[in-house]
Amino acid sequence: MNSGEKTRVAVMGASGYTGEELVRLLLRHPRAELTAVTSRQFVGKSVAEIFPRTSLHPSAHTVRFSDPAAEKLAAEAEIVFLALPHGVAVEFAAPLLRLGARVIDLSADFRIKNPEIYREFYGHEHGASDLLDGAVYGLPEIYGEKIRAAQLVACPGCYPTSILLPLIPLLREKLIDPGSIIASSLSGVSGAGRKAELDYLFVECNESVRPYGVPKHRHLAEIEQELSIAAGSSVTIQFTPHLIPVNRGILTTLYVTPTDTKQIGAAFEKAYANAPFVRLLGEKSLPDTKHVVGSNVIEIAWRHDPRTGRLIVMSAEDNLLKGASGQAIQCFNLMCGYDETAGLL
Amino acid sequence: MNSGEKTRVAVMGASGYTGEELVRLLLRHPRAELTAVTSRQFVGKSVAEIFPRTSLHPSAHTVRFSDPAAEKLAAEAEIVFLALPHGVAVEFAAPLLRLGARVIDLSADFRIKNPEIYREFYGHEHGASDLLDGAVYGLPEIYGEKIRAAQLVACPGCYPTSILLPLIPLLREKLIDPGSIIASSLSGVSGAGRKAELDYLFVECNESVRPYGVPKHRHLAEIEQELSIAAGSSVTIQFTPHLIPVNRGILTTLYVTPTDTKQIGAAFEKAYANAPFVRLLGEKSLPDTKHVVGSNVIEIAWRHDPRTGRLIVMSAEDNLLKGASGQAIQCFNLMCGYDETAGLL
Amino acid sequence: MNSGEKTRVAVMGASGYTGEELVRLLLRHPRAELTAVTSRQFVGKSVAEIFPRTSLHPSAHTVRFSDPAAEKLAAEAEIVFLALPHGVAVEFAAPLLRLGARVIDLSADFRIKNPEIYREFYGHEHGASDLLDGAVYGLPEIYGEKIRAAQLVACPGCYPTSILLPLIPLLREKLIDPGSIIASSLSGVSGAGRKAELDYLFVECNESVRPYGVPKHRHLAEIEQELSIAAGSSVTIQFTPHLIPVNRGILTTLYVTPTDTKQIGAAFEKAYANAPFVRLLGEKSLPDTKHVVGSNVIEIAWRHDPRTGRLIVMSAEDNLLKGASGQAIQCFNLMCGYDETAGLL
Amino acid sequence: MNSGEKTRVAVMGASGYTGEELVRLLLRHPRAELTAVTSRQFVGKSVAEIFPRTSLHPSAHTVRFSDPAAEKLAAEAEIVFLALPHGVAVEFAAPLLRLGARVIDLSADFRIKNPEIYREFYGHEHGASDLLDGAVYGLPEIYGEKIRAAQLVACPGCYPTSILLPLIPLLREKLIDPGSIIASSLSGVSGAGRKAELDYLFVECNESVRPYGVPKHRHLAEIEQELSIAAGSSVTIQFTPHLIPVNRGILTTLYVTPTDTKQIGAAFEKAYANAPFVRLLGEKSLPDTKHVVGSNVIEIAWRHDPRTGRLIVMSAEDNLLKGASGQAIQCFNLMCGYDETAGLL
Repeated sequence: MNSGEKTRVAVMGASGYTGEELVRLLLRHPRAELTAVTSRQFVGKSVAEIFPRTSLHPSAHTVRFSDPAAEKLAAEAEIVFLALPHGVAVEFAAPLLRLGARVIDLSADFRIKNPEIYREFYGHEHGASDLLDGAVYGLPEIYGEKIRAAQLVACPGCYPTSILLPLIPLLREKLIDPGSIIASSLSGVSGAGRKAELDYLFVECNESVRPYGVPKHRHLAEIEQELSIAAGSSVTIQFTPHLIPVNRGILTTLYVTPTDTKQIGAAFEKAYANAPFVRLLGEKSLPDTKHVVGSNVIEIAWRHDPRTGRLIVMSAEDNLLKGASGQAIQCFNLMCGYDETAGLL
Repeated sequence: MNSGEKTRVAVMGASGYTGEELVRLLLRHPRAELTAVTSRQFVGKSVAEIFPRTSLHPSAHTVRFSDPAAEKLAAEAEIVFLALPHGVAVEFAAPLLRLGARVIDLSADFRIKNPEIYREFYGHEHGASDLLDGAVYGLPEIYGEKIRAAQLVACPGCYPTSILLPLIPLLREKLIDPGSIIASSLSGVSGAGRKAELDYLFVECNESVRPYGVPKHRHLAEIEQELSIAAGSSVTIQFTPHLIPVNRGILTTLYVTPTDTKQIGAAFEKAYANAPFVRLLGEKSLPDTKHVVGSNVIEIAWRHDPRTGRLIVMSAEDNLLKGASGQAIQCFNLMCGYDETAGLL
Repeated sequence: MNSGEKTRVAVMGASGYTGEELVRLLLRHPRAELTAVTSRQFVGKSVAEIFPRTSLHPSAHTVRFSDPAAEKLAAEAEIVFLALPHGVAVEFAAPLLRLGARVIDLSADFRIKNPEIYREFYGHEHGASDLLDGAVYGLPEIYGEKIRAAQLVACPGCYPTSILLPLIPLLREKLIDPGSIIASSLSGVSGAGRKAELDYLFVECNESVRPYGVPKHRHLAEIEQELSIAAGSSVTIQFTPHLIPVNRGILTTLYVTPTDTKQIGAAFEKAYANAPFVRLLGEKSLPDTKHVVGSNVIEIAWRHDPRTGRLIVMSAEDNLLKGASGQAIQCFNLMCGYDETAGLL
Repeated sequence: MNSGEKTRVAVMGASGYTGEELVRLLLRHPRAELTAVTSRQFVGKSVAEIFPRTSLHPSAHTVRFSDPAAEKLAAEAEIVFLALPHGVAVEFAAPLLRLGARVIDLSADFRIKNPEIYREFYGHEHGASDLLDGAVYGLPEIYGEKIRAAQLVACPGCYPTSILLPLIPLLREKLIDPGSIIASSLSGVSGAGRKAELDYLFVECNESVRPYGVPKHRHLAEIEQELSIAAGSSVTIQFTPHLIPVNRGILTTLYVTPTDTKQIGAAFEKAYANAPFVRLLGEKSLPDTKHVVGSNVIEIAWRHDPRTGRLIVMSAEDNLLKGASGQAIQCFNLMCGYDETAGLL
């Protein structure tokens, strides 16, 4: 592909934190040309007006928010990112695909392969279940080849990424007992989205830490689906998310029972030798969200506890980048044949 | 005891966060008369100068920091609180006791009954192992009767309190598998003490969350000692502390395998029916450190997960109050025959 | 007054941060008996259910939120606190007073003596302008005697308190040029109230600092009214509030041109010699909100700058205590003839 | 200059927050090749080991910290950045310049033109006063042309940048009274550097706001020097810095007496029409540090207050970027003839 050529992209639903990050990353991307952004509440405003941090980019002043319309977007963009709420993205994916656009969806709408499990966790029928088979789960370290060729990519959620990347290599190599997995995750408040709700007020979150969604969080559906694929058998895990007073960042601590403690390091090295965004800390140091916030990197460390026999695996990522928009750009790079790190350094 | 009479108290080593809280609580306490505070670095200064927040109390202006000297303190105070570093408290306890003072120690020095385990976790011989047998572990909800009569009380650490109070009733009633315990704890930065170290600078902690002390934290010694007593057999647990950007507060999430899920609530109700500072949230709501910071309360909630069969028990406390100085005051109240909540409302 | 006797009190509109603090302080107060709390959204719930931090007080479990009804409240309480929004408090004050209750209003409704100025700043006619003359501005250090006898007390706002207490002594003694006053104030987010608005979300406030309400903030009306009384002439000031990422606390830095720099300290000493909650730091140290948060204290410091000739006066207070509910309790103490610090130590 | 060619650069003293930002920006810069970094404490370690956030850049793994040695650095680099403490930078500048390197100094050592004023504010004789005349004050919006040709650039401090850029256009156009300037600045804690001091511990800064350095802060020397140049007469200002609990960001509120309120906007437009990093908010909106943190932008807004006649000018910047390392890169771009925004988008 010619090094000067750019891919025309559009973002639907760019009004939340994820959408803002996505727009910001695309404006900086050397191979992306942002042609359209949609958001009903901001129609007519320029990107720079709504997201002051983008103002150094000339296109932030010329691109204006428009109403969502699949026809227009498909005509203007080769790849359309959907940063819409769960249940809304599904309405736009089918028409966009029909009109020839490739779609990168950041919602949960196309992550679950089994429509019954979708209904169990999301409480309603899936609106376009015929598309589920073709959708590729957008975890580049796991599904890189499929993502390259995909028409529809379903980007993983922030919690799933922080749990799947540390566990999949261990499950694939049969190094841990799949029934023993316990995930304790701590998330920054941007993970709750940009919603005017009392629970997420500064005074309610600052100087506070609390668990929520105990014991059955929606993200379990996609986490267990992908862990089961890696294990080759059905996996059920324990997962507890907690809200902590930081803007960005997820720290996940995983407790598992190993079947072989000597191959852990080798399994990680093998899985991620060519993964630019996976920083293996091994047994030297421990992850810290401040080392990954603002980047697309996920840190992974592990320790064997000889007292209990358990293995503790820990990860840290930026929930808005490796957990959302950065990962979407990584998928975009693969889909376009660009360097995986383009626009993400 | 006459309602107007006060008990003379002294605080040794009152220069850190724990010491400040202790002094503040004692100044407010209707039945305590603060007669002395010691701290080498502050000798000659008044309490109000060093701790501006105490300035509304007249004694904060008259009581001045002095050099530590057991004879003087024992002459002036009936009960001496030791807020000294681990390994230093042990030097003062024996002479104080010999001179007739009762001692409430907030360090780890007298918490471990077995001197071998002390050496394993603290790296040196215990300096007064003959006192270990007589020391009472200062967890009032568990050892209330013994604390009343004790000459030497070893107040529990902040993490141990947050783990022991939720687990002891379940272990005593044989409702959980003692080998299944995993504790994931999140602590505010005051838990690290008032030390000028890079790791605890604002910029290093703010917008950061990180595990530490993995896998063998010193507090495990006292946690496992007390859990083993409750279980009637040797208990080894998994424990991972994390540092989060709040000043105060510990949130602990416990993962255990229940042997009987129907008696959980009853066991808690039975254990803590008369415990003023234990707030059982049951299955109605989830703990939040902001609801306990500034008070001596510990919140405990639990959920059974039918998908995994596990029981999740969560607690929240103020690490400087129920996890340290508030608990010490609660012990003081028992030792003096005062109402358990005196000075703590 | 008999030391055992309690005054029956009620709180209307106890659903925000100010109301919660007020209820918490009244429950702890040795001479107050909380008989009723109102809040339409919480009718039927107990105080302890809505405000978990009050749960150690037995009455928090028995007192339940009721619908606001002046007759009922006046029958049950001798003193009624109004923690209602501006413009709503005015509707309840007149009937309560008529029915014989004394009223402590924490809203802005009765702070402005001149109804025209009220209209200019609040945008509508005052609803009970006949009550304005009789209302006493609830700043105990300035109007202590009038507050003792008042039927209706209008508690000052948080910014006004932080500006008035440092300036009134200097204006009364003619030590500064009244035309030179510039006030730069920094407030914690609880000052914005408990409202589900995007601007006050954690992610919008954390890692952010911003001015707002420039140049004409509503609080100017009461600030200038009281400064003019102290100066004996009409005073207009510059005032810029800023929002900073702390839960509680206001720091105000005042820039004034002195007419006599030698009498500053003496003027403060004279004005506040018997004011228990004013902590004069003089030229020794500088105020810090962390030294006053959680208490009813205001810290005041000053520095003369020989390079510019200006005087810099700085204050720190807890916006919810000395800036709101603590001050209301201080007024309550005066109105009942109790010690000014009762329930506030 | 050939678009592929890179300039070889070195960083001395890269162990603090400023140094880390500088290294990070240089690694990302399309026209810079980092050849050396020095720091006595980190000798032998790679950049990626010390600054995990740089790990995506291959050179972060090959460039290792070395001992500071002017000869070696001058041989390896065309431009040397000094991120050394005040008083240390001066020792290295002269040898480096002699050996032919151009120097960008981020310390205060070469900012003050008058050695007497340097001594007054810094308490000791200047160590290389012969270099002061040739040093260019590194504020690109003001000294762009001189910076292009400079051998030695003295980058402004964080507070000075936040005060000078808003005021210089107004002083140059004689639109404000130079004797009326009052600057109230709020800074994030990274401004204090990476020092293990109690004052900057998380617990001491979080939930705290405090003024410091009242009334004579060191930065006044350079601020008044540059304001005087702009005004064409000696200017003395009032300046109060405050510490607020954010990692990064400075918000400055300026109070001045205008001589002509109608030309304010025009003066700013004229001054900064071609300044890519100055975002003029005018009277439409107010600055917020969260809109500039992470970028090299400074936001400037203003309001005229008809009640007092004063003009309020407000600015927001990232103290580590536009207030330090970003500005140094901007100078570097000018010195090398690169686009002013290269590496800063």
